Amino acid sequence: MPKPETTPMPELLEPGAAPDLARAVEAEWGRALADLVRLVRQPSVAAQGLGVEACAELTAELFRASGADAVEVWRLPGASPVVYAEFAGEGERTLLFYNHYDVQPPEPLELWSSPPWEAEIREGRIVGRGVSDDKAPLVARIAALRVLGSLGPLPCRVKFLVEGEEEIGSVHFHDYVRAHRERLAADACIWEFGGVDQDGHPELTLGLKGLAYVELSAQGANRDQHSSVGAIVPNPAWRLVWALAALKGPDGRVRIPGFYDDVKPPTQEELRAVYAVPWNPERMRKNLGIEAFTVADDDEARLALLFQPTCTICGFESGYRGPGPKTVLPATARAKVDMRLVPDQDPEDVFRKLRRFLDESGFADVQAELLSGERAYRTPPSHPFVKLVARTAEAAYGRSARIHVTSAGSGPMYPVGHELGVPMVSTGCGYFDSRAHAPDENIRLADFAQGIYHMAMLVREFGRADA
Amino acid sequence: MPKPETTPMPELLEPGAAPDLARAVEAEWGRALADLVRLVRQPSVAAQGLGVEACAELTAELFRASGADAVEVWRLPGASPVVYAEFAGEGERTLLFYNHYDVQPPEPLELWSSPPWEAEIREGRIVGRGVSDDKAPLVARIAALRVLGSLGPLPCRVKFLVEGEEEIGSVHFHDYVRAHRERLAADACIWEFGGVDQDGHPELTLGLKGLAYVELSAQGANRDQHSSVGAIVPNPAWRLVWALAALKGPDGRVRIPGFYDDVKPPTQEELRAVYAVPWNPERMRKNLGIEAFTVADDDEARLALLFQPTCTICGFESGYRGPGPKTVLPATARAKVDMRLVPDQDPEDVFRKLRRFLDESGFADVQAELLSGERAYRTPPSHPFVKLVARTAEAAYGRSARIHVTSAGSGPMYPVGHELGVPMVSTGCGYFDSRAHAPDENIRLADFAQGIYHMAMLVREFGRADA
Repeated sequence: MPKPETTPMPELLEPGAAPDLARAVEAEWGRALADLVRLVRQPSVAAQGLGVEACAELTAELFRASGADAVEVWRLPGASPVVYAEFAGEGERTLLFYNHYDVQPPEPLELWSSPPWEAEIREGRIVGRGVSDDKAPLVARIAALRVLGSLGPLPCRVKFLVEGEEEIGSVHFHDYVRAHRERLAADACIWEFGGVDQDGHPELTLGLKGLAYVELSAQGANRDQHSSVGAIVPNPAWRLVWALAALKGPDGRVRIPGFYDDVKPPTQEELRAVYAVPWNPERMRKNLGIEAFTVADDDEARLALLFQPTCTICGFESGYRGPGPKTVLPATARAKVDMRLVPDQDPEDVFRKLRRFLDESGFADVQAELLSGERAYRTPPSHPFVKLVARTAEAAYGRSARIHVTSAGSGPMYPVGHELGVPMVSTGCGYFDSRAHAPDENIRLADFAQGIYHMAMLVREFGRADA
Repeated sequence: MPKPETTPMPELLEPGAAPDLARAVEAEWGRALADLVRLVRQPSVAAQGLGVEACAELTAELFRASGADAVEVWRLPGASPVVYAEFAGEGERTLLFYNHYDVQPPEPLELWSSPPWEAEIREGRIVGRGVSDDKAPLVARIAALRVLGSLGPLPCRVKFLVEGEEEIGSVHFHDYVRAHRERLAADACIWEFGGVDQDGHPELTLGLKGLAYVELSAQGANRDQHSSVGAIVPNPAWRLVWALAALKGPDGRVRIPGFYDDVKPPTQEELRAVYAVPWNPERMRKNLGIEAFTVADDDEARLALLFQPTCTICGFESGYRGPGPKTVLPATARAKVDMRLVPDQDPEDVFRKLRRFLDESGFADVQAELLSGERAYRTPPSHPFVKLVARTAEAAYGRSARIHVTSAGSGPMYPVGHELGVPMVSTGCGYFDSRAHAPDENIRLADFAQGIYHMAMLVREFGRADA
């Protein structure tokens, strides 16, 4: 396998946009790639309690070795630590980077073509769990500061907020942000993810949906029964099916009273921004292997994907699930349901409404537990910071940035936006086939180099700009 | 562990009812118990293809060693063999015994207190997979013929029909019976199962429900998706939930049009027979750990259990089922549904109606497969053969027989009743805690001895009677 130290850097797309930075990135390359390999080789699966402490320590060490003026490891009881770092700079302004050092579980292992913790370099890519989500963006940002540092003092103050529970719903993140509100004060924030789309344009994302993740369960007899008693013995599988069918019908509308009360419709500028980006629904259907979306009109489907809350069965199980027939009446049944929320829905409020609805619909016996909750957040497309990042991305990549007013996915933008009141734009080192959360997660070496270059350019422009 | 040869026979309950038989049973005891241990030690799990051929051979060998005049192993392609045996007798009449040599899978193994294939004898019991269902009844019947043979010629012709697929829905049983219709001709049939209830009364069962066991499945995208696309990508878990909820609602009524068309209400004599047997719904609820049945009125519940068809979810699965949250939109969902049928419902007809209902209710995308089908059958309580068996049971056990017009469970009585036109009564060697299909399946030695005694008495009386 090629070693990081001897792996040549792919050519940058627009070295002429900032020739001094381009040369400095080239000089930094070997170290940046070695740091990335080292970080990926440190497992950090919050869901499995695997390597979390060690990875927080390694992250802190990378900051220290890169000349940070302050590096702290924050702790809360029962929580993954948060790594905080600060780099002094000349200007008045402060840029905050949000990242996470935790990653998804690597399973199913048999579907990887090289071991997930190996960070194997091949065919112009690095393959490993967490390389795209979110270790390469983090290492690229630290490398970008070293790039700028090699040319002179930083043009602004830079802070890093690196959490360790993003992949399990950022359980303690809001507490951390609240507790360190003053310390984290900044003028703008660069979020963790992004990359280059199928047409080669850099993608910027301004918002995330929220989440209310609920487990529903029902209990019948004290153990599985012979199904011959099905005429009279309560069946938790039926109870759960009926409760689920009450939540949402084939029309896709969630039937929990008040569920849509706090849904804010998209603004005119958000709609304009949506329509400024091409969308290919036919390609999406083909990739998914489906005939049709659940929303018939493609334009409506696109808006629903971004601006409508969802109610999705993520899984369920009960009774016998093996091959062939087994005549059993199950004792228990469970289902996982996630609801993607939009501004201004509140997961606690949605959960209370769900509980009340179950009670009032005759399903008081169905247990419900809120496993994870997050609020949605969106930065307006017209914000000057959005324009600045779009400009630097275009300069660095040589193609216009495509601005997504929100992802359909969820993440903890809300605590940062709510507590710190900063605009947020997400950009990263991935591409359309990075396979985040899936086997063979990878990034292209070229995108990693380009990400360092873009981040260096962005910090410099941010220090100069009024935005 | 005590050896079968040196395990003393428990005292019979009513040795005075037939002192010559009682003495002969005592003489047979060691051999009968040794045969039973040997048969249980031969695994024979049709569902797992484990030991089926070997167990058929061993069964045939037991018949040969017991003086059968004809022993045959019948075969059909892809089917477990059927073992047929015939014992000549003096009278004109022929009694048929139906048994099966196959047993349920032993899993979960960790819940057994002694290995399932060990047939351990302890505390007056024999513990092993299949000992109650249905190896002890089979061995007791063969032993009973040796008991009678030790006293003179058999008073009637006796035939044995021993199948090897009862626990997987008797897939080929009807074909076997049809193919050997003439050979199997008889005047009456003793079915495979039964025992002594909690009050010490021998139980006789005259009927079995039928079965239509269906697997439903739905398919969404070509692989599991990130659940953020839940607003527009079809979710097979939802499709299945809605299809299931369409089949049956919380009122318990099956909504498939025509489902109840062929349901025959119980006759007056069946109802009289039901009410002649005590029923303790409170004890049943307590055993199950439930507050209430799904049918509020206890009398209605009792009749529903016996005379109403069911629609039971035996299991379902889709997507993520591990601990905590995982935001996935599943690619597939499956459910197992069993419908217990009553006379004169036909599983093929019920399945066609189900398919049509799904198609007409907007669920043409939900796949359905009939895994197993059986028709119900009941012998009228007033049949003279029922009265004969009730009389011999009462004589052998010293307590009145309790007659169940039907079990709530299913089994292949229909092919025998339909093809051979014989009355059927089921009786066996079990008791209320025999744990058929469950870990620690067992019988009491006393019930085994009593079963041999009763079977010998029954064959003798059958040979004598006009019934």
